[in-house]
Amino acid sequence: MEEHLSNSVGIVETKTIHVVTAADPLKLQSGKTLGPIDVAYETYGELNEAQDNVVLICHALTGNAHAAGYNSPTEKKPGWWEIMIGPGKAIDTNKYFVICSNFLGGCSGTTGPSSINPETGKPYGLDFPIFTIGDMVNVQKLLLDKLGVEQLLCVIGGSMGGMQVLQWTIAYPDFVKSAVVAASTTRLSVQAIAFDAVGRNAIVADQGFAGGQYHDNQEPLRGLGIARMIGHITYLSEEGMHQKFGRELRNADEYNYDLKYEFSVEAYLDYQGQTFVERFDANSYIYITKAMDYFDVAGEYGSLEHAFNNSNSRFLVVSISSDWLFTAAQSKDILDALLACGKDVSYCNIHSPYGHDAFLLEPKTLGALVQGFLDTTHDPIGTSARNGDESATKKRHLKKQDYAKRTRVDYELISSLIDTGSTVLDVGCGDGELLSRLIAEKNVTGEGIELDQDLVIHCIERGISVIHRDIDEGLGEYATDSFDYAILSQTLQTVKEPEVVFKELLRIAKKVIVSFPNFGHWRCRLQLLLKGHAPRTKQLPFRWHNSPNIHCLTLEDFDNFCSELGVKVEKKIAISKSRKIPIKLAPNLLAEQAIYLTSKYEG
Amino acid sequence: MEEHLSNSVGIVETKTIHVVTAADPLKLQSGKTLGPIDVAYETYGELNEAQDNVVLICHALTGNAHAAGYNSPTEKKPGWWEIMIGPGKAIDTNKYFVICSNFLGGCSGTTGPSSINPETGKPYGLDFPIFTIGDMVNVQKLLLDKLGVEQLLCVIGGSMGGMQVLQWTIAYPDFVKSAVVAASTTRLSVQAIAFDAVGRNAIVADQGFAGGQYHDNQEPLRGLGIARMIGHITYLSEEGMHQKFGRELRNADEYNYDLKYEFSVEAYLDYQGQTFVERFDANSYIYITKAMDYFDVAGEYGSLEHAFNNSNSRFLVVSISSDWLFTAAQSKDILDALLACGKDVSYCNIHSPYGHDAFLLEPKTLGALVQGFLDTTHDPIGTSARNGDESATKKRHLKKQDYAKRTRVDYELISSLIDTGSTVLDVGCGDGELLSRLIAEKNVTGEGIELDQDLVIHCIERGISVIHRDIDEGLGEYATDSFDYAILSQTLQTVKEPEVVFKELLRIAKKVIVSFPNFGHWRCRLQLLLKGHAPRTKQLPFRWHNSPNIHCLTLEDFDNFCSELGVKVEKKIAISKSRKIPIKLAPNLLAEQAIYLTSKYEG
Repeated sequence: MEEHLSNSVGIVETKTIHVVTAADPLKLQSGKTLGPIDVAYETYGELNEAQDNVVLICHALTGNAHAAGYNSPTEKKPGWWEIMIGPGKAIDTNKYFVICSNFLGGCSGTTGPSSINPETGKPYGLDFPIFTIGDMVNVQKLLLDKLGVEQLLCVIGGSMGGMQVLQWTIAYPDFVKSAVVAASTTRLSVQAIAFDAVGRNAIVADQGFAGGQYHDNQEPLRGLGIARMIGHITYLSEEGMHQKFGRELRNADEYNYDLKYEFSVEAYLDYQGQTFVERFDANSYIYITKAMDYFDVAGEYGSLEHAFNNSNSRFLVVSISSDWLFTAAQSKDILDALLACGKDVSYCNIHSPYGHDAFLLEPKTLGALVQGFLDTTHDPIGTSARNGDESATKKRHLKKQDYAKRTRVDYELISSLIDTGSTVLDVGCGDGELLSRLIAEKNVTGEGIELDQDLVIHCIERGISVIHRDIDEGLGEYATDSFDYAILSQTLQTVKEPEVVFKELLRIAKKVIVSFPNFGHWRCRLQLLLKGHAPRTKQLPFRWHNSPNIHCLTLEDFDNFCSELGVKVEKKIAISKSRKIPIKLAPNLLAEQAIYLTSKYEG
Repeated sequence: MEEHLSNSVGIVETKTIHVVTAADPLKLQSGKTLGPIDVAYETYGELNEAQDNVVLICHALTGNAHAAGYNSPTEKKPGWWEIMIGPGKAIDTNKYFVICSNFLGGCSGTTGPSSINPETGKPYGLDFPIFTIGDMVNVQKLLLDKLGVEQLLCVIGGSMGGMQVLQWTIAYPDFVKSAVVAASTTRLSVQAIAFDAVGRNAIVADQGFAGGQYHDNQEPLRGLGIARMIGHITYLSEEGMHQKFGRELRNADEYNYDLKYEFSVEAYLDYQGQTFVERFDANSYIYITKAMDYFDVAGEYGSLEHAFNNSNSRFLVVSISSDWLFTAAQSKDILDALLACGKDVSYCNIHSPYGHDAFLLEPKTLGALVQGFLDTTHDPIGTSARNGDESATKKRHLKKQDYAKRTRVDYELISSLIDTGSTVLDVGCGDGELLSRLIAEKNVTGEGIELDQDLVIHCIERGISVIHRDIDEGLGEYATDSFDYAILSQTLQTVKEPEVVFKELLRIAKKVIVSFPNFGHWRCRLQLLLKGHAPRTKQLPFRWHNSPNIHCLTLEDFDNFCSELGVKVEKKIAISKSRKIPIKLAPNLLAEQAIYLTSKYEG
């Protein structure tokens, strides 16, 4: 263990604090009351003088307050999110004061079904009142009050932890400056509810369960183990399981033709079940899964938009590409609701084969996202300073083509079209260079959309809010006229359905700036005319068969397009590649590229 | 029930036949022996004089011999595949003699763990020997021998039934004329094995299980119910469950805040579990899932290609788009292995939201596929007769664009390039018209690849083998030089990576015929030159933004392309749209489209 201590928070103590008394019990969402309530928690790092560096970690179904470090020098495994929390790590305990508490109803120090019911002197068992995610968050708030915390820089959680994060932003909109919701949802899928129900069923079916009062007897270990096995399968992806186990046999090269565990995956699941029952309480499992099933933001608040509308948080929403329990589509629902409310939100769908559990296993990607998000929330002035820092970019080995898409000339001319202090959506924003310039030079409020995961991370690291999205799959639920400007720079000719994208941008933004290479340039015309082959120029350097430009258009084409769609062309700048001076004469013949400023006609 | 009888096989009897005696027991794959063995089976329709109309149905995990009709006038539910089997249905009992038997180890009449062990006078329980899919098929073969069946027109099965179908084609390659493998796999995913293991665990954990000798006592009903609930979730898709249940509560509008079943899906699953235990035996469940887990064609025979190589069957492989238990990718593995062996195979990935269970719920699509496949296997002469039958096509409301892609002129010229009696792969074969012509006029052996599901069904209905596949995702595992010709008619300019597709076709076929619209036609050149917009002609009728032609090429471009790839242009026919006479003078200027016959240079 010693060697790990160097980049670990080291030895930490789980403390317990009394947040509710028996005399003044907490009213729960069900209407019932509960008291006394103790909360187990750990803290890492130090509260700074400004008291603006508090980060709250919310744990998932089977987690606890022990998120980082070691509870004793002999402890073999560190806290459950050791890879993310510590000095110099993504959630840097040199900078931030980190708190993690076991939630209400847990079985690791906070009051729950296995706690002693003061009325009977025995464990509550099934007499424990039903609680919700809302109740958990209220208890966390009581803890923070006791600790004297007046604002959270950030609340972070994955899976069921993400549900608590969402609840925090809804229930305490002014208390939470930013929120990271990883691999989570505003409500479980029906499939997830079904799996939860079968797990509870397996526990209750165990003869050892004894109606929940198993504490003096044999516990429902087999039932709880089966529930855990079911859960564990849903936390992994088939791809991940295939990589890890395949059809590998446990102790043999050939089938035994008996009924014992033969495949490695069987033995692994059995082990997972057995070790789980040693540390977890069956009643807690029943109550907590019930709280997850109940969580339904839209159901409780009328709609997601209504729920999130009062929030004052910056959001980072993260999903895992191979997660089938809390899917990327569910994260996109959160994202879309936040976009519809005009909230400041970034989103990344991490490409990972590890399924739902990846939020515990992808410190590199998730770490970069969380670190960038946290640091730029805490220190937003850093944005301009980060402009010049290309090292992170270089480290990520960005493809040249991604840069080639845009030219500096393009940037300067686009910038000249944008009013100071306006709001801007940059579609296909790349590494965020144009947005950074606009923020620095024009004081705009800017957001981006980008398909490439590395570029998304880079944007977030430099403090730019960005959505990881393929615009061919739609632009999301932005409200009408959400922005003063939308920019589509060197992208229109590469999307599948330019008309759909262009119309949608005209809905989202008051003005749309489009730039594209001019297929009507004289070189193109002459090449086709005289040489009889598909044109290749500096601006259109590709061959007919490997071009990302799947649509070829000229200035004339775009003029007609705008006119047919009833779109007003406010400005049209025709330029050659090298010179910044716009071309006035015969632009469709002489321009290598064009920049249009367009808008809807009034009425 | 009476009203159903009109298009049902009506009242049927499940018969039992003695196929193995105690004196001469069957040797199982495990090395152990079993006898006596009885088999329960049903038959529908009549054996014809030629004895060439026998169709064997293989049932899935929880099925039985009762596939169609009613066992008594008071029976409420008909056989499990009533939607597919009956007079005038997809598996038409007016034409075919249909047999379905309960497989070895089942609990519906065929010898299994709940049968009496002659040595003890008590049910076998866990003394029953482990059996495999191979053993099941061997027992089915014994049944067919007893019934005097000498060849199967077709063996059909979904899910685990499909495993038996695959085993049939491997173990009895000459006995099986054709095979339908629906929603199945050559081996379970690790995830599926894991779910099976948890299900078995739940049964064994039930105190009622009593080591498998529960027959005199309380049965392991709760454990078996839990196993069934887990299984049932895996048979459905989240989309299907969401449609059916959503977050609907059972008896209330608001949460009860108690631990009873509240969501409709919970009550539904519980009901599924309860009704299942009434009709199924826990030991059978354990043994059958074990047989599924063991099934591993590549593991047993070295490789899929090695296993399928001796087969003399026509194949129809069907997957369900939303099936996550037996995925489309797994079906594609079967397909690719069969293609690599040069077998006659068709494939369709049915677009359905109903998950794995869709093979029991999609009689329209699956029915059309199976019917077309069965009828054209039984009566292959029908092909030419079906050429003129456009009614099915019209019924499916095919999009005009699909037809517009190809012109009759194109067909005639392509046909003129192809030698009589050769083998042809038509990539993007549409409704199979060109292949039908080539089969009729040139006596070719032809196969197609097509993306549109309706067109795939139409091809299969007219007896053309076709693969449902997006060529942008690869062309599959065809062996090198599998065909004399590959045809890519009016498709090259619409694929994402023309170079990849073209090279792959040159590998698969000795010669490749490519046709495409000529972007170098004088009208295109002049339009771009003089009018300055992206060309639009009769052959290129689309606007710049809505064209399926995502690459623009001229004859000159294609000449250069071939020369760079080291491809020999054997013939080059430049044509205008209306006239069949090839253009000799200045083809790149005057041709509206071009047809190339290309081949690899020798050495």
